[in-house]
Amino acid sequence: MTQLDNPPYYAVIFTSQRTNNDRQGYLAAAERMEDLAREQAGFLGIESVRDVDGFGITVSYWTDLAAIDAWKNQVDHLGVQRLGRKEWYESYPLQIARVERAVEFPPSR
Amino acid sequence: MTQLDNPPYYAVIFTSQRTNNDRQGYLAAAERMEDLAREQAGFLGIESVRDVDGFGITVSYWTDLAAIDAWKNQVDHLGVQRLGRKEWYESYPLQIARVERAVEFPPSR
Repeated sequence: MTQLDNPPYYAVIFTSQRTNNDRQGYLAAAERMEDLAREQAGFLGIESVRDVDGFGITVSYWTDLAAIDAWKNQVDHLGVQRLGRKEWYESYPLQIARVERAVEFPPSR
Repeated sequence: MTQLDNPPYYAVIFTSQRTNNDRQGYLAAAERMEDLAREQAGFLGIESVRDVDGFGITVSYWTDLAAIDAWKNQVDHLGVQRLGRKEWYESYPLQIARVERAVEFPPSR
């Protein structure tokens, strides 16, 4: 969370329920997409948790909406999004939000 | 996610690393706080995941910043926040964000 001390910046909140399909393929793609996201212009960070029932929340952080749109339309990512809808996810509400305040515990400064 | 189709609204993104302390007390308080949050004016929803290593993301949704401030300062919640810093959490960055876009898969309409 090092670059995330100074709002405003943007968060993509992605909540998803996994199907039981294709666990290996899913995990490989998830790792590949996280690596690829880190290389994109405007990427600030990502945090992801999934519980034993397959429900997960991933939040990625970006400098601005243009960076989010560019990532959404990145070619490899588009292919994985199609696979996600077809195979991996039962549902995934996705929300784009402008972070206005950030507080840390313990205080970093 | 029924009331969350029409941005703008606000999200509180709370990421936390649990200590190993007081598992029972933590779980009871977490449940009590979620029930209490649901009763607050301006509450829209909450989603929470924690993995086996104790890392968790909770996102709660609110109509506006005034509702978030009121919840932050709710008396029982203040007491639990103190306990959280003392006993339950190693760290918890907290971010407040204005949700500007929401997309659902599968489409609800």
